[in-house]
Parts: sequence; structure tokens; C-alpha cells
Amino acid sequence: MSGCPFGGGGPPAENGAAPAATAGKSGVSRRGLLGLAGVGGAGAVAGIAAGLLGRDAVEAAVSPASNVSSAVVPFHGERQAGITTPAQDRLHMAAFDVTTEDRAALIRLLKDWTAAAEAMTAGHTTGGTGAVEGPYDAPPEDTGEALDLDAGRLTLTFGFGAGLFKKDGKARFGLEGRRPEALIDLPHFPGDALDPAKTGGDLVVQACADDPQVAVHAIRNLARIGFGKVRVRWSQLGFGRTSSTSRAQQTPRNLFGFKDGTNNLKAEDGGLLNQHVWAGGGASAGEAWMAGGSYLVARRIRMHIEIWDRTSLREQEALVGRTKGTGAPLSGGEEFTAPNFAVTGKNQQPLIPLDAHVRLAHADQNGGVRMLRRGYNYTDGSDGLGHLDAGLFFIAFVKDPRTHYVPMQMAMARQDTLALEYLKHTGSGLFAVPPGVQPGGFIGEGLFS
Amino acid sequence: MSGCPFGGGGPPAENGAAPAATAGKSGVSRRGLLGLAGVGGAGAVAGIAAGLLGRDAVEAAVSPASNVSSAVVPFHGERQAGITTPAQDRLHMAAFDVTTEDRAALIRLLKDWTAAAEAMTAGHTTGGTGAVEGPYDAPPEDTGEALDLDAGRLTLTFGFGAGLFKKDGKARFGLEGRRPEALIDLPHFPGDALDPAKTGGDLVVQACADDPQVAVHAIRNLARIGFGKVRVRWSQLGFGRTSSTSRAQQTPRNLFGFKDGTNNLKAEDGGLLNQHVWAGGGASAGEAWMAGGSYLVARRIRMHIEIWDRTSLREQEALVGRTKGTGAPLSGGEEFTAPNFAVTGKNQQPLIPLDAHVRLAHADQNGGVRMLRRGYNYTDGSDGLGHLDAGLFFIAFVKDPRTHYVPMQMAMARQDTLALEYLKHTGSGLFAVPPGVQPGGFIGEGLFS
Repeated sequence: MSGCPFGGGGPPAENGAAPAATAGKSGVSRRGLLGLAGVGGAGAVAGIAAGLLGRDAVEAAVSPASNVSSAVVPFHGERQAGITTPAQDRLHMAAFDVTTEDRAALIRLLKDWTAAAEAMTAGHTTGGTGAVEGPYDAPPEDTGEALDLDAGRLTLTFGFGAGLFKKDGKARFGLEGRRPEALIDLPHFPGDALDPAKTGGDLVVQACADDPQVAVHAIRNLARIGFGKVRVRWSQLGFGRTSSTSRAQQTPRNLFGFKDGTNNLKAEDGGLLNQHVWAGGGASAGEAWMAGGSYLVARRIRMHIEIWDRTSLREQEALVGRTKGTGAPLSGGEEFTAPNFAVTGKNQQPLIPLDAHVRLAHADQNGGVRMLRRGYNYTDGSDGLGHLDAGLFFIAFVKDPRTHYVPMQMAMARQDTLALEYLKHTGSGLFAVPPGVQPGGFIGEGLFS
Repeated sequence: MSGCPFGGGGPPAENGAAPAATAGKSGVSRRGLLGLAGVGGAGAVAGIAAGLLGRDAVEAAVSPASNVSSAVVPFHGERQAGITTPAQDRLHMAAFDVTTEDRAALIRLLKDWTAAAEAMTAGHTTGGTGAVEGPYDAPPEDTGEALDLDAGRLTLTFGFGAGLFKKDGKARFGLEGRRPEALIDLPHFPGDALDPAKTGGDLVVQACADDPQVAVHAIRNLARIGFGKVRVRWSQLGFGRTSSTSRAQQTPRNLFGFKDGTNNLKAEDGGLLNQHVWAGGGASAGEAWMAGGSYLVARRIRMHIEIWDRTSLREQEALVGRTKGTGAPLSGGEEFTAPNFAVTGKNQQPLIPLDAHVRLAHADQNGGVRMLRRGYNYTDGSDGLGHLDAGLFFIAFVKDPRTHYVPMQMAMARQDTLALEYLKHTGSGLFAVPPGVQPGGFIGEGLFS
């Protein structure tokens, strides 16, 4: 952590709680740094008349370009932020292939990413001390497109894919025996149509913020810092969160137009989070580094929205098992009423059909397992066939994908009419998300000790 | 306009002004309609116990899913909204190929789109009267994903491509002689690398809003309404505006990290707008329908951000001709100081280099012509080569592209080192944007009379 002006001192914060309103202990944000940067920059200019260049401190009357929260979510803590943090509005997620085979270079990268994440989540530039600081004849230490923007509740959540431990049959980085058993190779699910270019990755970074430019800036700068060591494998923007992760949030809607994630696990579900979200230390000593972490399942799920939009309201509600307007289960009540799968209507047919999504996805039908979902709606241009390429970028955090994702997804892929007729999984990833970073530490430190 | 509950009465509004804070004369927004929709839906259900289904009016405690403006920009007016309207934060633009050859079907589509645009820009569902209204055994009249969201300053701006008038050598829709001379086929510019799948289109819709889900919902529902008559040719999300169109707005930054559009034409530039943005009636009577309209130039410009990010600050500023921090011209002053292209520094070299972007793009170097830019930053996944596919989705509104776009772009493509080394044009479109719609009228009505 040497060289990082934000890494030292202070008690560890407990992440996942409500965002703090402070701007971090160094106390100067990107926006406030514009003037200072001008001074610093001018000082670095030799041989050019600083006055003529106008590089004296000019404190522009900055105001946020978009109407976003200025709150800061603490980066340090027992858990990584971005899991139980109340879901921000926008996503930029990227998976990287690691191109170096040098263990020291990988550790250096994780330390550099840690320093950059500490700075950016606090609303600072990655360089840490100003907008355009550093030598005038060197590349800027920050790409600059977030200079006038607040922290925007940015969280950066890091995970490790199976390819970090072993690739093409060859162990990597001296990590033999450290791959957690739960970091499985996901099985092929019926109907999977995975694009290799949208699947896998050795490292993943989930950037969530209330301003998309803040999230994009973060991923772009991590990619910049990783130049020569990592390559972007895939990258996904999400424009509308499809889950709430706090009871303080309204349930959002997916691109089927239905409320999504009503029964999601939420930050307030302390005991259930230990049961379903936070990983233990595994069976072997080699994976003790994952204690307090989680597993991130990412699935790019294309929705056939054009076909859906020509389906009757009756059929849509029967497929989902809830009303479209209020999100109440078809067995009655309001949105948060527990679905009653036994109650029948005319002809003794269950009011919530046997193949309804809400029934098949319910914990009662899945051995009691639950997950913390944190997905986003996406629209990626058109599909070349006259349709929008749109859907759900599914993200879930689970204690163990072998018990908490694979059985449910296998059942869905086989029985859920909604999934069978209107969804297509086109991308996939599974990542081990290590516990949080303490001041002075770095991402995934336990894996390398 | 029969069948549209929002089209009648009231004086025409002058668009392009600051958004009105009213919710339209029908006075009930999407968010307020949730409860009503439940009632309406229940009334339409025959043979299913409405009580058990929970479809009684349940007014959910709705609050905006994101922190956006609830203001409404009037749809009706002398000009179309979305041109001088203060630029919203988010974009979804789509170009459509018209697949019908039936003139009446095309007019029907434009009328249906008008009604839907009137409703959605006012914060209503496309059906107009409720969330899930309409027969229970028919598809919902709105896809629903914006049900809990405000109008979000949504504007929908419509344009006509050359392919609407003539395609494959064959005149269409009886529009012989109505194609404006200014609606040229853009020439090939040096360096163009246009993807046909991201270029052209018979119709274009620019949806801008402060909430991306509102913009995506609008395009998606227009595509839904056009089923069987149009196909999506290309679609582009933009996450961060790169221009201000009002002096009340802060200058935003592009993905080079520089302030962009400092010298943009703005809503307050009344006389200059007539000179540079608003079209006249053309030379022939056949194109009088364009009087008061404009021409929309769209260019998808990939930025080689990875190379840019390894360029020195000195070089970046020399290429742009402005400082990165404050955006002041290199000839001195602050952001809005006029650049002085004559002033020289040491060695008698001009402080703003001869190949600087700000010099080549300046009106003084381009016969005094100016444009109203309204572009957005984009990031569309990765390029398969380890990089982000990111850049600028350039949008400009001009009086005549023959005088106001082609010469400047030709000069840029030949001389602008920034463009030559760091930009690649991968998509393109030129569209005739008709004047605004009056109550009772429809989009482009003058073209069909």
C-alpha cells in the first residue's frame, strides 16, 4: 500500500450498511480538486507561459452533471461493498483475462487496483491528488471523464474466476490447492446458448453507481492500470437495477414489465445472509481465505421481449405468478404477501399455476435456499434481425453455487415456461468474491499469504 | 388523432424552452395510475375471483426508483422537442427500416407513434389510461417497465431517412419529389469504417430522458407499436451527455476526459439557431414541409481510449487545444474565453497548434458555420481484442448538412490529428427532422399533405 495516500489508518468500516455521507478522510473530492489541479499542473509546466495557458487555479462553478447522490460507500470493511449495499441504479461489470503468468505482477496489480478503488469510491481521481497531476509529459494518472462528478455511491466488487487458479491444464501463480471447491465449472443447463466472448474470465469487477459515467470511469481506469497484465474479456452495462437489496428501496421492474425481486434477500436479513450469502472457510485449509466472502453468479439473459409483448396479460401473469400492476401473488394480497401455492380457483386449478416462475423459484420449492440478487436490465443495440437485444443481466451472490444456484437453475431451465419460451442465457460467469479489504491490505490478500 | 385521449385542445406549446413542471392536461401520471389500473384490470376479469387475485386497488407506496427529475417537456410545439431542450442525461436512439410499402399503413404508424409519444412524454402509459388496462385476454397496451417512473423529461424526436423516399431505385409511399435536397447521401469521409448494420435507416427516433429506463421503454414501445411495419435497424444507448444545449448546464466531459461542447450552440442563441439549426422550406415547393425542421447527423465514433490513456497530458492538450482540467483554450483565459489562434509562445509556435481540434472545428475555420451538438458517451461491451468498445455517439442538428456538416467533417477527417489517430467512425445516419406537431396533428404530417 505504499504510495497510496488513502490506505492508512482509521478503524475498519463495516460495509454493506447504509452509505456514509463523508467524503473520506482525505476530505477532498474530484470536484473540489479542479482548482488545485490547475495549480499543480501549472507548477509542472516548464517553458510555457503559465498565465497565457490559463492554468492558474480557476475554480469552475461546478455542479453535478446529473442528479445523483453524492454519498460515499466505504471501501474498507469486513465484507466487500456492492453486495448488501442498497443497489445503485447503474452497472458496469467487466471480466478480465490475466495475460501475465508472474505472481508478483498479479499481486502488484491487485495492490494497484486496491489503491485505485480506495480513491475512486471516495470520489477521488485514481492518481489520488488532483485532476491532471503528475508530470506534464506523462499520461495523466486519471482519465478525467468523472472529474466533475461526485462519488455517486460507487462500489467496486472484485472476484476471482477458475482461470486464475488453473488454465489449459496448467496451475497458475502458485495457487495450486487454493481454488475453493465451491468455485466449480458451472454445468451446461438445458437451453444454454452461451457466447464464449461473453462467458468466463479470470477476474471480475462489478462497478455499481448512481451515475453510469462514474461506473464506466472506474472500470476504464482499472483496465488502464492493468495494461499489459489483463485484457478485457467482456463488459456489460446495466441501466436499471432489477432488485432491491434493502427494505428502504422500492421493488424495481424488469423488461417483462413486472416487479422483480420482491422476495430478494436484503441487507436487513442478518441471519439469513449468513445462511445463504456469506461463504464459510471451506472444507480445506487452502480455502480459508474465502471465509466471509461470497460467490458471484453472472448470467446474461436475453429476453424475447417482442414475443412477450404480444402475449396476453392473462398469460403473462400466469407465467410469472404475480399481477403486473402491483406485483401481488396470484393467490391474493399485495406485493409482499406470501404466495399461497395450495389455494385453488375454479376447476380446482391452483391460482398460482404449477409452472409459474414465482412457484419454481420459491425457496419452498428449492430446499429452502435463497440468494441475494443484484441484477440489471440491459439493452445492447439490436440483434441484426430487427429486434432490440435486451434482457436481464442476472447477478446473484450466494454462499455456495452448488447448493444455492445450480439446482434452482437446473429446475428452471427444465420446467419454467417463462424461461423456456422467453429467455435465452447468452453469457455466464462464476467468481469467488473474497472478503473485504482492511486499511493497508489489498484485494484477495488472503489468497496470496 | 381519434382514439388518442391526449391529442385534443389547448394552445400549442413552444418547445425547446425550459421544461414545464405540469404533468399534462390529463393530469394522471404512470405512477398515480397503478391503483386505477388494478381496478380496471379487476373489472375486466371474468370468472376469476378478483378478491383472491388481489386485483383490488392497492395503491403501492411508490417512489422513483432513481433520483430523476419528474418534469415534463411538452411534446406539442412549433419545433420538435429534444433539439434545444436542455440535454437530458441519457439517450436511446433507434433507426428503423420500414417494411411495409403501403402509404396508408405508414401514415397510420406515424399517427400511432404520435399518440404514444404524446402519452409517454407526459409520463403516461402508451395505452393512455392505465397500467395494465385493456382486455385481460389481450396483450397489455404498455410494456410496463416504466410504470413506477416519472416522465423524466422524456423527449422523442422523429426523423426521416432517404430510404423513406426511394429505396433500391424505387420511389416509395408516393413521396416522389418530396425528398429535400439537403437530405443528401453523405459522402465517404477519409477513414470511415462504417458498419452497414449501424448505418442508415428509413426512420429514426431519438429518445432522451434523465432516466435510461424511461428512454428504453419509449423506444421499445414504439418498436412494439410498429410491429409488422418496421424493423429495428440499429439502436444505441448513450449514458452521458457530451454537450450542453443551455447556458444553465455545466459543460460535460467526453471519454477523452475533456470538456466537450464549450462553444456549442445553445437554446438561448435565438438568432443563431435560425441561421444554423432550423431548416427553411427548401428551393422547391415539394420540400416546404421541412420549414422549421432540422437535419440530424448521427455518427458512431469509436475512441481508441487505451491508446489515448497512454498519451502524455501535454500531447492530449495539444491535440485538443484546451487544458484538461478547466477546459480553457491553450491561448489562455478560462473555459469560455474565446480561443486566440494567432498568439504564439516560445519559438514563435502558436499556443493552439495548427492541427488542434479546437482550431479545426472552430467556426472561424469553417466559413462561420456552427452546429447544435447533442451527443452522448457510449460503452458497448468489449471489442473482442481486449479493449472496451467505447466512444462518442455524435449527434448534431443543422440547417443544412451540405454547408453545416460535410465540409467540416471532410476537413477534420483530413487534418485533425485527434480524429486521424484516436477516432474511428463506425456508424452513420442523416435524417430530415420535420417541424413540431400541433395538437390533433401527427409527426411529419406536412410530408403527406
